Amino acid sequence: KIVELIQKFFGNNDGKQLTGKTVLITAGPTREKIDPVRFISNHSSGKMGYALAEEAKRQGAHVVLVSGPVQLQAPSGVDIVKVESAEEMYSAVLSYFDGADIVIKTAAVADYRPKIAHDHKVKKQSGDTTIELERTKDILFELGQRKKKQLLVGFAAETNNVEEYARKKLFAKNADMIVANNVKADGAGFGSDTNIVTLFKPNGSITKLPLMTKTAVAEKIIEEITSLLKEMGKNGDC
Amino acid sequence: KIVELIQKFFGNNDGKQLTGKTVLITAGPTREKIDPVRFISNHSSGKMGYALAEEAKRQGAHVVLVSGPVQLQAPSGVDIVKVESAEEMYSAVLSYFDGADIVIKTAAVADYRPKIAHDHKVKKQSGDTTIELERTKDILFELGQRKKKQLLVGFAAETNNVEEYARKKLFAKNADMIVANNVKADGAGFGSDTNIVTLFKPNGSITKLPLMTKTAVAEKIIEEITSLLKEMGKNGDC
Repeated sequence: KIVELIQKFFGNNDGKQLTGKTVLITAGPTREKIDPVRFISNHSSGKMGYALAEEAKRQGAHVVLVSGPVQLQAPSGVDIVKVESAEEMYSAVLSYFDGADIVIKTAAVADYRPKIAHDHKVKKQSGDTTIELERTKDILFELGQRKKKQLLVGFAAETNNVEEYARKKLFAKNADMIVANNVKADGAGFGSDTNIVTLFKPNGSITKLPLMTKTAVAEKIIEEITSLLKEMGKNGDC
Repeated sequence: KIVELIQKFFGNNDGKQLTGKTVLITAGPTREKIDPVRFISNHSSGKMGYALAEEAKRQGAHVVLVSGPVQLQAPSGVDIVKVESAEEMYSAVLSYFDGADIVIKTAAVADYRPKIAHDHKVKKQSGDTTIELERTKDILFELGQRKKKQLLVGFAAETNNVEEYARKKLFAKNADMIVANNVKADGAGFGSDTNIVTLFKPNGSITKLPLMTKTAVAEKIIEEITSLLKEMGKNGDC
């Protein structure tokens, strides 16, 4: 009882910044079915999201990790939900959203999917062909519309005009932070164990981080989220 | 000298069936670039091809394994050549073809690739879109045309009419054996550690194998290849 009161007085004395918080993290690519054999996907390795899940867990959070197909082991103690398509990702994220305090969307969700997903392998023909594509649901936008208490962090993986797109995304999606990286830069982006990111916040602040391991980037992002929570008065302990 | 003569007389007394042979194996999927982030690929895990590489090596062959992007360790003692696209696969296979005695094409090479591979990430627009596709080179057909001494084995991964397609493929590609599997069958196909295959040969013989591990399927295929080599008088020791 006394220990509890002292801990309450001094805040998180165990050094854990996210005790009592539920963090929903998405990671990896999605796969959009063309037929039973072929699909459209992207180069996301899931490393950034898995590093964030590990760090959030280390900071005492309850972590739900919604992951596309990747070759990584889920960090221990993290609830893993495996999905394939953008549509499955959407359903999984929405079903955990209400219970989440913090949502970090690192997954590289397909913007488009084939209009028709064939049940049989499509036989090749001579000559050219086309795939008709339709838009998938914009999960981050949807969450931005629905959010109440949730702190919402999005990622922007770009190959050019990174800053411009990141700022636009921040406001268009009603996010609380956008983590932008140029996936074409050396040492950044998909598959790499390192990353070079810039953090954009609605108040106009921009934090450019140097080349760091994804683990170190994850620590920095969780730190920023903790500060944001405090600023926004969303930290129940304060 | 006497040992050599005795070995020559009794054949491969060490039990190794492919000593002195060079086996070229392709494995895994290819990735066809849409832009720096997105690609078209397929569910091939590379497991069947890697199992064949290991078995061919065990049988004393010099093995060259041309592999698309997979999450597997190359068997030790095997020469690995890593490729991404169908075009890279084509170049690699052609450059090793003349030196090969046996060619086994397990790779699931894309039949189509985007006509345009964008240098920048394509920004999403509202509404539908299309991807224009063009045919890639048909590597197995090309090898069938060029083959001299080479024994040529192709794979047919189908989801329906497996036998019909396999027979057609055998003759259309001038192959010496087609290994067909229904990738939709339980326990067969991509990602699985087991497979259910049927072997088709030009003389009309059909060998249906039961559900087996990919390692066991690889042993059986190498056995069949060894017999074929003997039948075709291509086994230099006989």
